[in-house]
Amino acid sequence: NHVIVCGYGRNGKQAAQKLLDYKQDFVVIEKDHEVVDKFAEEDLLFIEGNANEDEVLIEAGLERASTIICALPSDADNLFIVLSARQINPSLKIISRATEETSYRKMKLAGADNVILPDKIGGDHMASLVVVPDLIEFLDNLSISGDDDSINVEQVSFENVCPSGDEQAIEKLDIRRKTGCSVIGYKGPTGEYVVNPEPSLVLKKGSKLILIGRPTQIESLKNLYNV
Amino acid sequence: NHVIVCGYGRNGKQAAQKLLDYKQDFVVIEKDHEVVDKFAEEDLLFIEGNANEDEVLIEAGLERASTIICALPSDADNLFIVLSARQINPSLKIISRATEETSYRKMKLAGADNVILPDKIGGDHMASLVVVPDLIEFLDNLSISGDDDSINVEQVSFENVCPSGDEQAIEKLDIRRKTGCSVIGYKGPTGEYVVNPEPSLVLKKGSKLILIGRPTQIESLKNLYNV
Ligand SMILES: [Ca+2]
Ligand SMILES: [Ca+2]
Repeated sequence: NHVIVCGYGRNGKQAAQKLLDYKQDFVVIEKDHEVVDKFAEEDLLFIEGNANEDEVLIEAGLERASTIICALPSDADNLFIVLSARQINPSLKIISRATEETSYRKMKLAGADNVILPDKIGGDHMASLVVVPDLIEFLDNLSISGDDDSINVEQVSFENVCPSGDEQAIEKLDIRRKTGCSVIGYKGPTGEYVVNPEPSLVLKKGSKLILIGRPTQIESLKNLYNV
Repeated sequence: NHVIVCGYGRNGKQAAQKLLDYKQDFVVIEKDHEVVDKFAEEDLLFIEGNANEDEVLIEAGLERASTIICALPSDADNLFIVLSARQINPSLKIISRATEETSYRKMKLAGADNVILPDKIGGDHMASLVVVPDLIEFLDNLSISGDDDSINVEQVSFENVCPSGDEQAIEKLDIRRKTGCSVIGYKGPTGEYVVNPEPSLVLKKGSKLILIGRPTQIESLKNLYNV
């Protein structure tokens, strides 16, 4: 149930750092011996080898992994890994970077769940600093260390929140008092989002609630609703 | 009070798209005549020229701009613009991309407020898809069009929330009923963050509240507290 990170370049290193912060188990596949040597002392588990080779992926535990992050610099290499990984483990979550916009569709076709274009994400982030600066500052300043300044967001389905099947208003559920979590969004049965819904909004069958909380609050939420 | 985007490559294009979504006034400086020709039909205001030249920056209205986004592919070019822009307009918000990590400090020294490394942001985003997938899905699915599915987050200072200067508990303020906005964070006087604070938490002098809401809710918040 671990994560495999392919490539310890700029993208892979940053991804690994965040996984460490969240105490998420992971292993890094890196073919450059000097890179492995240099960082192996730190708290990282490396497999020295080429992620393009099925045996290396299997050595990294691909068959029982939850997720693979393809962070090699070349789109062709990442595409090759996406295809191999999807063949070996059909239920794996596959996340890949891509440099070229034209690679996006190819990677999706090959089986990637998420394709990240760093230049797009970077441009988006620059504009977000202009249009939603307080949101960006809030998210950037959270040091995700499991304490009071850690954030988590959880989606809970109508079926979990209202196991009887009766459609109820958000305020009737009294979630804040019971779990400490706050409702920040609602996703209706046809996929439409409402940010910060009114307490009087009635949950429809097939909808989802989006809640924010600290790790302990999210934990009580999950316990209460059997998530 | 507009934004200047330097360069209409991958980063600049994505930044411009987001600014358009948020109906933010902006102008793009692009030196490639073919690029200007190709995109000028769209709803974009272009200035054809080299953002490295002071006259071009001034033609783009740098002296009265609120923000400049330096999105050229070369770190040296962006650094040059950061320096020029800071000289011409000391109160400008300067956001620059950088490819090399070593450029980060140089750009900060030259006067940039924010320096974005697309590979770092990309790596961070890939890991976030693993550790906070529901938060990422929530943020990604918001189509920021000014309606019910638009998000905004606002920081409000203690001084605005409690103009009398008396320290009060969050629940006493009754912000949710008065404005519709929900409190999602608290930033204490010494900078420490609390995610989703308890309603009983007492606001200290010098602190800030972080609130989430739809645009109309944020508007009432700003009116209520004279932000
Ligand atoms: Ca979840
Ligand atoms: Ca603000």
